Amino acid sequence: MPVGLSSPAQLLPINGVRIATARAGIKPASSKDDLVLFELAEKTTLAAVFTRNRFCAAPVILARNHLDSSPTIRYLLINSGNANAGTGKQGINNAKLTCQAVAELEQVQIQTVLPFSTGVIGEQLPVEKIIETIPTLFENLQLDNWLAAAKGIMTTDTVPKGISRQLDIDGQSVTITGISKGSGMIRPDMATMLSYIATDALIDQEELQRCLHQVVEQTFNAITVDGDTSTNDACVLMATATSGCRVDVSNKVFMQGLNDVFQYLAQAIIRDGEGATKFIEIQVQGASSHEDAREMAFTIAHSPLVKTALFASDANWGRILAAIGRARISSLEIDRVDLFLGDTCLIEKGLPHPHYNEDKGHAEVLKDEILIHVNLNLGSDSATVWTSDLTYDYVKINAEYRS
Amino acid sequence: MPVGLSSPAQLLPINGVRIATARAGIKPASSKDDLVLFELAEKTTLAAVFTRNRFCAAPVILARNHLDSSPTIRYLLINSGNANAGTGKQGINNAKLTCQAVAELEQVQIQTVLPFSTGVIGEQLPVEKIIETIPTLFENLQLDNWLAAAKGIMTTDTVPKGISRQLDIDGQSVTITGISKGSGMIRPDMATMLSYIATDALIDQEELQRCLHQVVEQTFNAITVDGDTSTNDACVLMATATSGCRVDVSNKVFMQGLNDVFQYLAQAIIRDGEGATKFIEIQVQGASSHEDAREMAFTIAHSPLVKTALFASDANWGRILAAIGRARISSLEIDRVDLFLGDTCLIEKGLPHPHYNEDKGHAEVLKDEILIHVNLNLGSDSATVWTSDLTYDYVKINAEYRS
Repeated sequence: MPVGLSSPAQLLPINGVRIATARAGIKPASSKDDLVLFELAEKTTLAAVFTRNRFCAAPVILARNHLDSSPTIRYLLINSGNANAGTGKQGINNAKLTCQAVAELEQVQIQTVLPFSTGVIGEQLPVEKIIETIPTLFENLQLDNWLAAAKGIMTTDTVPKGISRQLDIDGQSVTITGISKGSGMIRPDMATMLSYIATDALIDQEELQRCLHQVVEQTFNAITVDGDTSTNDACVLMATATSGCRVDVSNKVFMQGLNDVFQYLAQAIIRDGEGATKFIEIQVQGASSHEDAREMAFTIAHSPLVKTALFASDANWGRILAAIGRARISSLEIDRVDLFLGDTCLIEKGLPHPHYNEDKGHAEVLKDEILIHVNLNLGSDSATVWTSDLTYDYVKINAEYRS
Repeated sequence: MPVGLSSPAQLLPINGVRIATARAGIKPASSKDDLVLFELAEKTTLAAVFTRNRFCAAPVILARNHLDSSPTIRYLLINSGNANAGTGKQGINNAKLTCQAVAELEQVQIQTVLPFSTGVIGEQLPVEKIIETIPTLFENLQLDNWLAAAKGIMTTDTVPKGISRQLDIDGQSVTITGISKGSGMIRPDMATMLSYIATDALIDQEELQRCLHQVVEQTFNAITVDGDTSTNDACVLMATATSGCRVDVSNKVFMQGLNDVFQYLAQAIIRDGEGATKFIEIQVQGASSHEDAREMAFTIAHSPLVKTALFASDANWGRILAAIGRARISSLEIDRVDLFLGDTCLIEKGLPHPHYNEDKGHAEVLKDEILIHVNLNLGSDSATVWTSDLTYDYVKINAEYRS
């Protein structure tokens, strides 16, 4: 059961983006849609970030290549059920074949089609099944298909993830809609996640890339389930210009709206983290640098002992302090560290707070949503990271994923 | 059930080391001994390494202080059930009180007594129970008590861990006996482990420290269960000189014997890792530096997805390659990487080996003891790390440890 997350009630269409989903049978035992096509209006600008894992999947290699060589992107073809990773030259060729099938039907350059895959690693893509299904996708393209797309990209996700925001920018209405998938192999520098966000704002290509980098750093790159980075991660931001409202990275209303959408989608992945029963926010402040603050937050977030304690609703601050003490931060001084669970101070200057007792801590960790706040009292930099607990079901899901 | 590990059949006494164990009632619900005293002959030299966690426990702070200020150590007082960590000044004072009680009974300087604690973090040490029990310890000191000591220092361990080796050094007999404890919060730079190793060889103080550092690096600092470093880790090497046989770090027979003992004790901790069903050796060769090789080995060893796959006997090389791809090694080139499970080649130059099939991989991971061998083909440095799988029982043990 995801923590504080349910299927989105309404996802607003974005003029200039048409979407279709279909079942190609990539997941043989499933009756669910596993193939999604996005069609973008001609003037759409597009920015993307991909996994930093050096072992990256064929569609990531090809998508980067297409982005480098084509000024415009017209189609996104996404399959779930097979990651097309660890598949060598044949994998690249297979990804090309699927892009080619889209390009030929619409008589566009193959470089205007981006491929995306998510699912099992190390099996060749069932290219024929995908190519056979592409005409059906074109027949079904429509504006109001975001929820179906959110469902079509799911793997071990238990709920589709999506959100829309409508903004008033100087009297003009701008809409942002986004979807994401992912619930394991999740950590910074892009997770096992795919995310597609579109807006009808008018944003120049370079400016769009700036917007994307700024919000990704604070959202998708600040989540972790298990510290494992996927081979297939991608996050795509599209601006169709159909509202006519021009914005850039300095527009506060737009950037706040964009950040809200990205943060919701990133947190949704954690809320639906494999086996998760808790949603955990880790705030580190008072660090000497932003990098130190992030390193500290992720060290706590990755500690199996902290994560199992929170699963058990055990306010085991000893494990949190032990994680703090081993973080790779040279300037750390334990006798300056303050530690809070929610508003409750557990540790002050490295020692148990005199008014703290186990009942107060227990009340904080009984909650579904837990805030761990650390002040290092060394400087003025901070970072926030979101994670989930480590549970029986995490082990079960990942021990049984292929069997 | 530990993997390939049972209680030691025989632990040889070391002349010059007398040991006593008793039940002080530190673990209220247990009838087991939780207090151990080592008495060392006057001429014994002693070297120790401690946790590098900056949040270190009171006994670690005090033991370091005593070692710095006293040329000789006569007593080790070890309790299980309470780590005396996160206990502030009162914790230090409590550790002092227990050392003082030992020192006063025997009329020695308090600095000749080293305290050690392992167990729950954040609760004050039950000093009175310990002090009341110390006279009983002195009544029970005897040479042949190593197995009782191995049992007395256990926390979540399921079997006592100990080994003896007898060496022939130029016609003289030298004995080494060691014990260790620990099964979770285990990772390099000392784990949640205590280990005490004694020999009757004659080794000068500085030379002994050299011997200790050399073997620890290859053994205790090459194991990991969960990446969490404890606040209390300590490894103590004692040389009583009673055999009259003088050795130093250049003596190959002695160093091999010492390494064997340390490696056995370090691996025993992994074999008894919390919830472990597999013993996993990770060999990385062909790295540009030893540090890179270690970083790569530990990144694989810490991957929850690799560990859950091995628990399920799933030869999921995609997860291993994904861990390799995200390791913090700048020189990595995925298309040079070779990956073996045992003698079976799965990946050659970054791609699935043409003769590999799932049955071959499955046969390797069905074993209780699994070898993951990675050749980065970048240089000539290597490292080996030992770890365990991630199981339901790991979560169970750590979710229930305090409840």
